[in-house]
Amino acid sequence: MKEYILLIDTFDAKGLVYNVSKVLFANNLNIEQNAEYVDKETNKFFMRTVISGDLNENILLKELTEVLPKESTIKLNKKSKKNIVILATKESHVLGDLLIRYIDGELDANIQAVIANHDYLQDLVEKFNIPFHCISAENMEREDHENLVIEKINEYNPELIVLAKYMRILTPKFVETYPRKVLNIHHSFLPAFIGANPYKQAHHRGVKIIGATAHYVTDDLDEGPIISQDVVRVDHTYSWQDMRRAGRNVEKVVLSNALQLLLEDKVFVYGNKTVVL
Amino acid sequence: MKEYILLIDTFDAKGLVYNVSKVLFANNLNIEQNAEYVDKETNKFFMRTVISGDLNENILLKELTEVLPKESTIKLNKKSKKNIVILATKESHVLGDLLIRYIDGELDANIQAVIANHDYLQDLVEKFNIPFHCISAENMEREDHENLVIEKINEYNPELIVLAKYMRILTPKFVETYPRKVLNIHHSFLPAFIGANPYKQAHHRGVKIIGATAHYVTDDLDEGPIISQDVVRVDHTYSWQDMRRAGRNVEKVVLSNALQLLLEDKVFVYGNKTVVL
Amino acid sequence: MKEYILLIDTFDAKGLVYNVSKVLFANNLNIEQNAEYVDKETNKFFMRTVISGDLNENILLKELTEVLPKESTIKLNKKSKKNIVILATKESHVLGDLLIRYIDGELDANIQAVIANHDYLQDLVEKFNIPFHCISAENMEREDHENLVIEKINEYNPELIVLAKYMRILTPKFVETYPRKVLNIHHSFLPAFIGANPYKQAHHRGVKIIGATAHYVTDDLDEGPIISQDVVRVDHTYSWQDMRRAGRNVEKVVLSNALQLLLEDKVFVYGNKTVVL
Amino acid sequence: MKEYILLIDTFDAKGLVYNVSKVLFANNLNIEQNAEYVDKETNKFFMRTVISGDLNENILLKELTEVLPKESTIKLNKKSKKNIVILATKESHVLGDLLIRYIDGELDANIQAVIANHDYLQDLVEKFNIPFHCISAENMEREDHENLVIEKINEYNPELIVLAKYMRILTPKFVETYPRKVLNIHHSFLPAFIGANPYKQAHHRGVKIIGATAHYVTDDLDEGPIISQDVVRVDHTYSWQDMRRAGRNVEKVVLSNALQLLLEDKVFVYGNKTVVL
Repeated sequence: MKEYILLIDTFDAKGLVYNVSKVLFANNLNIEQNAEYVDKETNKFFMRTVISGDLNENILLKELTEVLPKESTIKLNKKSKKNIVILATKESHVLGDLLIRYIDGELDANIQAVIANHDYLQDLVEKFNIPFHCISAENMEREDHENLVIEKINEYNPELIVLAKYMRILTPKFVETYPRKVLNIHHSFLPAFIGANPYKQAHHRGVKIIGATAHYVTDDLDEGPIISQDVVRVDHTYSWQDMRRAGRNVEKVVLSNALQLLLEDKVFVYGNKTVVL
Repeated sequence: MKEYILLIDTFDAKGLVYNVSKVLFANNLNIEQNAEYVDKETNKFFMRTVISGDLNENILLKELTEVLPKESTIKLNKKSKKNIVILATKESHVLGDLLIRYIDGELDANIQAVIANHDYLQDLVEKFNIPFHCISAENMEREDHENLVIEKINEYNPELIVLAKYMRILTPKFVETYPRKVLNIHHSFLPAFIGANPYKQAHHRGVKIIGATAHYVTDDLDEGPIISQDVVRVDHTYSWQDMRRAGRNVEKVVLSNALQLLLEDKVFVYGNKTVVL
Repeated sequence: MKEYILLIDTFDAKGLVYNVSKVLFANNLNIEQNAEYVDKETNKFFMRTVISGDLNENILLKELTEVLPKESTIKLNKKSKKNIVILATKESHVLGDLLIRYIDGELDANIQAVIANHDYLQDLVEKFNIPFHCISAENMEREDHENLVIEKINEYNPELIVLAKYMRILTPKFVETYPRKVLNIHHSFLPAFIGANPYKQAHHRGVKIIGATAHYVTDDLDEGPIISQDVVRVDHTYSWQDMRRAGRNVEKVVLSNALQLLLEDKVFVYGNKTVVL
Repeated sequence: MKEYILLIDTFDAKGLVYNVSKVLFANNLNIEQNAEYVDKETNKFFMRTVISGDLNENILLKELTEVLPKESTIKLNKKSKKNIVILATKESHVLGDLLIRYIDGELDANIQAVIANHDYLQDLVEKFNIPFHCISAENMEREDHENLVIEKINEYNPELIVLAKYMRILTPKFVETYPRKVLNIHHSFLPAFIGANPYKQAHHRGVKIIGATAHYVTDDLDEGPIISQDVVRVDHTYSWQDMRRAGRNVEKVVLSNALQLLLEDKVFVYGNKTVVL
């Protein structure tokens, strides 16, 4: 039997759960999983329901629209592997981790291609029979380079773009082209150490814990909605290179956890925050 | 407006959420928070809903009973401070932590009394104007001593009994007298180091992480349903006394987290496990 | 047999360990514990040695001075309970935790007094038979109030001053009066959320982990050398008040860990960092 | 200038640090790092010193032997990449993580070969140009199969053998053949859930945290000296397969941390414990 994920993002009102469940019940659908969240501060209502059964997508969406407030966002995704394109630069730890998960079936996605602004990672990627495209940024204007990257991404039309340590700053145009579709891993415990060389910054500040943050990319560098974070202890014996080494383990675990959440349609965005259901 | 917590524990069936929400909607009640969980393995369904509005408890329970499967357990608790009795022995860290939370209003409960099998903690407890009862176990049979404890507890008729490092083994009679009402903190990361002196056991085994476990008390010592756990890193420089010192911080945090969950009616038990909604 | 803690802070040079151990050996002293650290970047050398035996402090210091570089800082502390004065405002969780540790002998210090700018905590402190001084800041210039606080602290001449959620900004004069003697707990994972209301800031930013930081107080607010940090997970269901509640557990654990390190003379400062041996 | 790691394992005695540092000083050697530990309970003394300079290994060892107690174990290792052989079965996450670290230079070792009792991982390993040997155990006595594995390992004569989810029980003969040379990753927070299917056991017990343990292999299954451990939170929504997925991240991080410690000669064993300097 087919499974679907129903995602509702609206304002709270009396009877929402009743109205939605009534429609599902009337359509003879099973609720496999269900989670809601009401944010009291903003009066926002979020609902993620995994349903199974024979359904006509258009009819179901129409009936749900009729019982929900006008401004509601309603999505009905068939449960299936999402297509993703990965952007990288030179570092292999996050990308490599995704590739290993990919070939043993643990990554519930279809990696369509890897695009990088250097060719360092070509050998690694091609070992896994995945298309690799090097689009060098040398001697190019930022926008011109980015246009080439966008063009290449669009050839694949992915549902998600994963920045696996892609060390280029993205322009607002890029961000607008792929709204809420770009996942980044920042190598610090945001909002600490925004910007370049966070491990050097952390070492200089003498912190006792470092971390990593997976977030949606928005126009404000390192300011997008946070999806997942984790940390690891360090001490005075760590050089900044030691911190980077320790941090790499955290980076790959955090990115992979966040990506898993996105692949399962578990993340809602409101304001600059995420709700994970 | 009054708030109630509705707790449903039943078997999964089509339309459960619909049926419950229909009753709530028909009674003109607001859903403030709602969480469900279906355990696929056992087909169990759990639901915790915070509702507000004017309601007649008997009518609501009757209507819910009519739409739910026959074997369902349905509870409707008015949101209010629960009464608790604390049992202790000699150690003050967990008890003291509860007392400090109590006087600054952070502990959402009413501590009715502290009962201990030694008088070491009397001074501390009485500083906080809480009745303290020392029921010594010296020269007594286990059952006789326990009967006195039960008698004293029953004078207070508490909703929860918190074992704050109560170092006596409880008999099946005690457990049966207060089913799912007794919370214990065990000073190890269960199921590691069951039994006496877990810090000595941990030191002997040379573990690199120690922990604590809050659980419901059942007939099987240290085998009750786990509610909350946490850990802390140790290393070879820790004597078992150092481990105990480090572990005490974990014990008090874990117990207080678990107690908070019980006070908010967030914990369901099924088999030997808990669902925390 | 008496125990001493020898603390050496100098620049690295060939033969340092040899020269120090030679002096200790010649004086017939036992090395109970020993730890050194060389910071390659700055060429600084730190050594903490616990020694036991009969010794003449002046002679030992003289002999060590002769074999160490000229700029060395050498301290020889008899192992004993340090005197501390605690500053607080209205919140009781960190202070209360220290008091509970104090009366059960777990805090290896002598609390001489608590000074607060409100009288909220008077009852609590006096339960434990510790002098409480309320020095209100109302209708006073910052410097005038602080002078009164300094005067009161100086009556006790403590070895350490512990800010247990003291919510007043200290002037440079205060900091200079007690160099490397003032320990603060900041309710965020520094350097994230410097300044006021860090839990509100954290909630606004939508972080998934919050933390606390214990640090030496310096002229730059929230910028002093970090001694200890810890974190706890939060999620979208946490209001900022929930974050504060969760954070309080971390605050008290982090402060108590940092204080323990200071009481054991385990912390060296260099630049804006700490070495913990 | 060449670097060496000096490792001393002996019983504590007055003047040990003095005597060792005297010999190093007399040989005009630099101490780059130094750490000691005395275990009070057993009176054992451990020392790890990184030294640099021109030295004659035989002379230095002779001079150290003269000043140290008779039962001392003294090792002097030139700092260099160690040779390792990896044993695996079917799971790729730990092995894959090692391979990714290997090709980007993060793993400070030389992987000589991978030996497995199935051929599932052959493609993956050969992508990285590392010899892969499948030695099937089908229709074979345990000892006969193991003899073939030992024979193959001995062709490479590795300094360390890494069990990267090698799902075969080793005989005492294997353990004796490679004393303190075999590193294993166990997929539980030992000593919890010894034996088969720890994730199923953990799921059945309803724990709220799972973990992984890297340890030396000894004759007692899952009882060898623990080198490194880590944990991750789970909740009631996790099936045992979800726990396994979450645990895999921990397994690879813990194994890689433990391996790094062994590659840097930082681990001493005494009794059934480790000292990590």
